[in-house]
Amino acid sequence: MNKAFLIGGILLISATINAQTKTITGFTTQGAAQQFLLEQNFDKNLSSSGIGNTIKELSSRPHNLGSAGSKWVAENIYNRYKSYGFDVRIDTYHVLFPTPKIRVLEMTSPSTYKALLKEPALKEDATSGQADQLPTYNAFSADGDVTAELVFVNYGLPEDYELLERMGIDVKGKIVIAKYGRSWRGIKPKVAQEHGALGCIIYSDPMDDGYFQGDVYPKGAFKNEYGVQRGSVMDMPVYPGDPLTPGVGATANAQRIASHNDATNLLKIPVLPISYHDAEPLLKALDGAVAPDGWRGVLPFTYHIGAGKTKVHLKLEFNWDIVPCYDVIATIKGSLYPDEWIIRGNHHDAWVNGADDPISGQAALLEEAKSIGELLKTGWRPKRTIVYCAWDGEEPALLGSTEFAEDHAKELQEKAVLYINSDANGRGFLGAGGSHALETFMTEVARDVNDPQTNVSVLERLRAQQIINASSAKAKQDAMQKTGIDLNALGSGSDFSSFLQHLGVPSLDIGYGGENNGGDYHSIYDSYDDYRRFKDPSFAYGVALSTTAGHAALRMANAEVLPFDFRNLYKIINGYTEELINLTNDMRDNTKTENDIIRNNYYSVATDTALHLSMPKPKGEVPYLDFSSLQNALLGLQIATDNLWNKWNTMAGAPTTADAFNRKLYQAEQQLLLTNGLPQRGWYRHAIYAPGLYTGYGVKTMPGIREAIEQRDWKQAQQQILLDAEVINNLSNYLKESAQ
Amino acid sequence: MNKAFLIGGILLISATINAQTKTITGFTTQGAAQQFLLEQNFDKNLSSSGIGNTIKELSSRPHNLGSAGSKWVAENIYNRYKSYGFDVRIDTYHVLFPTPKIRVLEMTSPSTYKALLKEPALKEDATSGQADQLPTYNAFSADGDVTAELVFVNYGLPEDYELLERMGIDVKGKIVIAKYGRSWRGIKPKVAQEHGALGCIIYSDPMDDGYFQGDVYPKGAFKNEYGVQRGSVMDMPVYPGDPLTPGVGATANAQRIASHNDATNLLKIPVLPISYHDAEPLLKALDGAVAPDGWRGVLPFTYHIGAGKTKVHLKLEFNWDIVPCYDVIATIKGSLYPDEWIIRGNHHDAWVNGADDPISGQAALLEEAKSIGELLKTGWRPKRTIVYCAWDGEEPALLGSTEFAEDHAKELQEKAVLYINSDANGRGFLGAGGSHALETFMTEVARDVNDPQTNVSVLERLRAQQIINASSAKAKQDAMQKTGIDLNALGSGSDFSSFLQHLGVPSLDIGYGGENNGGDYHSIYDSYDDYRRFKDPSFAYGVALSTTAGHAALRMANAEVLPFDFRNLYKIINGYTEELINLTNDMRDNTKTENDIIRNNYYSVATDTALHLSMPKPKGEVPYLDFSSLQNALLGLQIATDNLWNKWNTMAGAPTTADAFNRKLYQAEQQLLLTNGLPQRGWYRHAIYAPGLYTGYGVKTMPGIREAIEQRDWKQAQQQILLDAEVINNLSNYLKESAQ
Repeated sequence: MNKAFLIGGILLISATINAQTKTITGFTTQGAAQQFLLEQNFDKNLSSSGIGNTIKELSSRPHNLGSAGSKWVAENIYNRYKSYGFDVRIDTYHVLFPTPKIRVLEMTSPSTYKALLKEPALKEDATSGQADQLPTYNAFSADGDVTAELVFVNYGLPEDYELLERMGIDVKGKIVIAKYGRSWRGIKPKVAQEHGALGCIIYSDPMDDGYFQGDVYPKGAFKNEYGVQRGSVMDMPVYPGDPLTPGVGATANAQRIASHNDATNLLKIPVLPISYHDAEPLLKALDGAVAPDGWRGVLPFTYHIGAGKTKVHLKLEFNWDIVPCYDVIATIKGSLYPDEWIIRGNHHDAWVNGADDPISGQAALLEEAKSIGELLKTGWRPKRTIVYCAWDGEEPALLGSTEFAEDHAKELQEKAVLYINSDANGRGFLGAGGSHALETFMTEVARDVNDPQTNVSVLERLRAQQIINASSAKAKQDAMQKTGIDLNALGSGSDFSSFLQHLGVPSLDIGYGGENNGGDYHSIYDSYDDYRRFKDPSFAYGVALSTTAGHAALRMANAEVLPFDFRNLYKIINGYTEELINLTNDMRDNTKTENDIIRNNYYSVATDTALHLSMPKPKGEVPYLDFSSLQNALLGLQIATDNLWNKWNTMAGAPTTADAFNRKLYQAEQQLLLTNGLPQRGWYRHAIYAPGLYTGYGVKTMPGIREAIEQRDWKQAQQQILLDAEVINNLSNYLKESAQ
Repeated sequence: MNKAFLIGGILLISATINAQTKTITGFTTQGAAQQFLLEQNFDKNLSSSGIGNTIKELSSRPHNLGSAGSKWVAENIYNRYKSYGFDVRIDTYHVLFPTPKIRVLEMTSPSTYKALLKEPALKEDATSGQADQLPTYNAFSADGDVTAELVFVNYGLPEDYELLERMGIDVKGKIVIAKYGRSWRGIKPKVAQEHGALGCIIYSDPMDDGYFQGDVYPKGAFKNEYGVQRGSVMDMPVYPGDPLTPGVGATANAQRIASHNDATNLLKIPVLPISYHDAEPLLKALDGAVAPDGWRGVLPFTYHIGAGKTKVHLKLEFNWDIVPCYDVIATIKGSLYPDEWIIRGNHHDAWVNGADDPISGQAALLEEAKSIGELLKTGWRPKRTIVYCAWDGEEPALLGSTEFAEDHAKELQEKAVLYINSDANGRGFLGAGGSHALETFMTEVARDVNDPQTNVSVLERLRAQQIINASSAKAKQDAMQKTGIDLNALGSGSDFSSFLQHLGVPSLDIGYGGENNGGDYHSIYDSYDDYRRFKDPSFAYGVALSTTAGHAALRMANAEVLPFDFRNLYKIINGYTEELINLTNDMRDNTKTENDIIRNNYYSVATDTALHLSMPKPKGEVPYLDFSSLQNALLGLQIATDNLWNKWNTMAGAPTTADAFNRKLYQAEQQLLLTNGLPQRGWYRHAIYAPGLYTGYGVKTMPGIREAIEQRDWKQAQQQILLDAEVINNLSNYLKESAQ
């Protein structure tokens, strides 16, 4: 008996023990054993080279919404599903999608420069020289022809304008230039417009994703001087989807807003994204004050604010066309519960070739479907219906998923058990966000997926990352004690938004990343050549995504009692409420202190007189808000979720009777929908999760209350507390009833 | 009666009330009234144009140690004191001062570049083209002729080498290039040498004081591409002053170490400072790994670590001459206590023209002396002797002040009541550091000096700055409650070091700044033209320094009972002790946590495999140290300082009998001197204040204990606790005796 044999023996034993002790919430011991076997078979059919080939094929030509390439991709996907044995159809919507007709940006004073507005082809990138690329632009910019002084506004956030005001600089009647980053791009022109700017230019500073971060493409992954981030600037935090058909599906005969000029989520000013090659002469020509600390990028000169001699001319005109939007919908009918749907989606449209965004996620999804197709051939069927979706038009405005969700709203609210989303995917760590009643579910899924680079599960790798990144010894020790996943709360930026925030369908958003950084995002260099070098060279994280999302879909499809645990939802809402109370108290302390400082002239005494800054003005004191309705609602929710969990365990002992209970479980989250939606944006109805009105993709939890507090609208904050308390009480009553 | 009159009337009354209620600690009411009158007369004679003229004159030619210019400046100052009515002499020491004979830096592979090593003359800067400028170099570099691979080491701090080791990069046998900043420059080659490097290049990255910070000279104040920071790299944290005569004055016949090669504070490797113009081709040529986050500067390319194909040749040879060092010493004998000295000093040598460093401080000091000269003409005499000093050779090694202090050690320990230092000075906020028994004294001085830009005292402006910069609402509220100054603890970097840290003479270091940033430091562009544009355009902060330091000198010279309050010293040492206990506890928690993380493989699981980093190694657990001797000593010190303060108040009631008591007060700080000095550097004898062995100018408080803890030398930490407890007990006993 040698040492190697001994080690093998021990490993074998420990693996056996592991398999014996592992459970899956929602399955009996026997059910779990069958499910593990199913997953083993599912996993066997996943192939990294298959994923690589799909990425190469689907990113082989430009395929933005409305293009021939997009139609070709939709049909390619359609045919794949056919071959996998799915029922498949293409749902076509008709959506507004502006594309550029005229794009001019030139400096007219103090010297002249005409912007290239063009990313050059590279010999190292096979697809970079293709025809039919969408030029560099921001979709849903307004038409415009303006000439004005240029002002540098940092990242173009509300607080940047506050500092500009203190510096005595008004952007009214001027054109602003903002850096990409720190906020969703659509916020920049929106805030500029609110401050009276005539136009907005957005550029990628090399500090953020260019040479300051690493070698630039094609030597390395980061943005070269000509790279441009395209992207939408529709005000999606107001509503996403087709701007002409808010709240309803953009079918051929849908009633439409007469003109895009009447849509409340479209800008009135022109916006254009540019490279740092094009930004450099403009920024270098700016005079005026030196840009404050934290505003400067790394181009090799001193950044100034401008509003002086530097003038630019910006002229943009668009084709405001209505184009077809092809959603591919592929179904396998459930054997036991055909009217309970597990929906899995990823978009297929790209700004250009989109090997990373979205094809890396789409390819993983198709690999799942292919593998499920192999299972079908063995005679297997899921208990619940599985719906695999490839959305079109995500890039301009989450169009395909939003129109689908609006079009099928009622049916989805009845039938949709879970929506599982993915998007761009790459090497790194599991990222998972979604409905918090699914935290245990997601933890167990992550526990059972191996990380391709290390010898641990993706759950363990994520835990390790959270441990080493924790900010203090105490936080690290706490993180070591935690065994589960903290699901991120979801804002916007991908196709889960309509399901979760408009319909209250339980949702997950899953992907890998963190070791796939670069500057290709929404540029022509988001290509297969870039992807295979810098994003996921072995396509192993494609397989990890297929495994993760596939297991999630299959488990939810086959679960005996659906693995929703609302005790986690209670905990998270309770935590948010504490945050809001602390936020209000901190704002009260800070306001009092700042007002004391202002009234005692400490700012004027301590500020450099050479900066000629005006002093901050005192703000209204922060009142005490009455959080008691919310706190009492949470007391009720805690009891209701504990009792429901008791009932859940009872059902787990008699799973064959769980049908009606399961339906109650997956429809529960709809109780958190606000009757009239959020203030100023009724499309968003979820009381707990929404994108921020002034942050964009970034989530605001309990947004009605939180944004009212942040905007110092105390009356609205108080109203929103009552409304959130009401939906929480609704949920408690609903769960109480469900527990009987 | 009109409104203006009313306002005038109110102001007049408030000024009267103010004058009536203001007191000066150490003076009777009558004494204080006389002193205020004296200060009014002193202030009347201060002139901003006088200071401007002095700066222009004394910076009109290069005047480094050993140069004709330095002799000329010393004589100019000598003649001024003559004209002011001081007794004046020049004390000449003979000190080692290397100047460059050969300077070559060239890249030999992968391409060739020969560094310019030259700052060009500018038409906007009248003195920038003068002959007799010291070339760009680091004084006390070793001679050397080395060719080796180049490695970028960030700021060259110990932790930078830890990361390099994890990256698998060894600098042994290589030449390193480090950025200026984050540590005193001498630490960079010292740490490089300890890691086996053959040579060291230091450059100024534009991120730190170049175009990233603001417009470059001559358009703005920041470093242009050719600017170079000269400076000493002697290991002054071991001992400053003439390296050949440690501990004794470098008089003509002093016993000297035979060769500079035997001095323990001199490097064995060559070091050269360069501009970013010269650094750019070298850095751009580096290959190897991308420099980690936080290492990269803002030159327009991606920074790499190197240790590959890029090779440089560095050849340096120096004239190791012994040169005369001219200290100008000007005295006014005290009328009552001629053997009690108030010493006021500022160096006069510069690296080149030195309008800012040191002439701005020197000019303020001369303005004080001139004004005191005017008072002398009225028949006034200070009660104690006033000694005004202009030190030579500060730049290479605090030579003039150190040799003077060593030469006159015994007399100074008997007679020196206070040493007041200044150095470069400019627009902004009062900065004051020193012996903490002088905190009340310094607060009252600052209370009575007007800030030139705002309508408040320099104390109020400093308070306002501390309030607005405090990190939280709570910290801001606390700062608003505070009325006094927090004196900074002193490290090194100017001429107070020998007085305070070698002799235990109570010391203050005073200057204005914070609104005078730029990149001229130790370059040819530290000129009058630069100064009058960017440092203190109206020379008003020169007057503020004259007023502050002059009042401090005059108050200490005339005080009835010397205003030392050791209760503040107790509080500060007690605070440092708490810090050390917390530091040890935090290190224990952190070590335990890090070791847990390492042993659980969380680092290896969470680290990007593409970085090929080796994992951190577990460290020895942190034992519990016995702080009780120190804590008990502090109990005693609290009682002793409280009792002494009672005695002090008794003496204040009968000031004419305070002579012996006063002597006790000003000699008390010598009780804090350690018999054998600090470990590895016995020259530093103060138990509370020293520069850091691995930070340079930056202070380490209770350095014996603190550095032992930081170096994880627990045995030494325990020994140093006992030694510090011993000197604190000595001080308590001394104060107890003095209170009797």
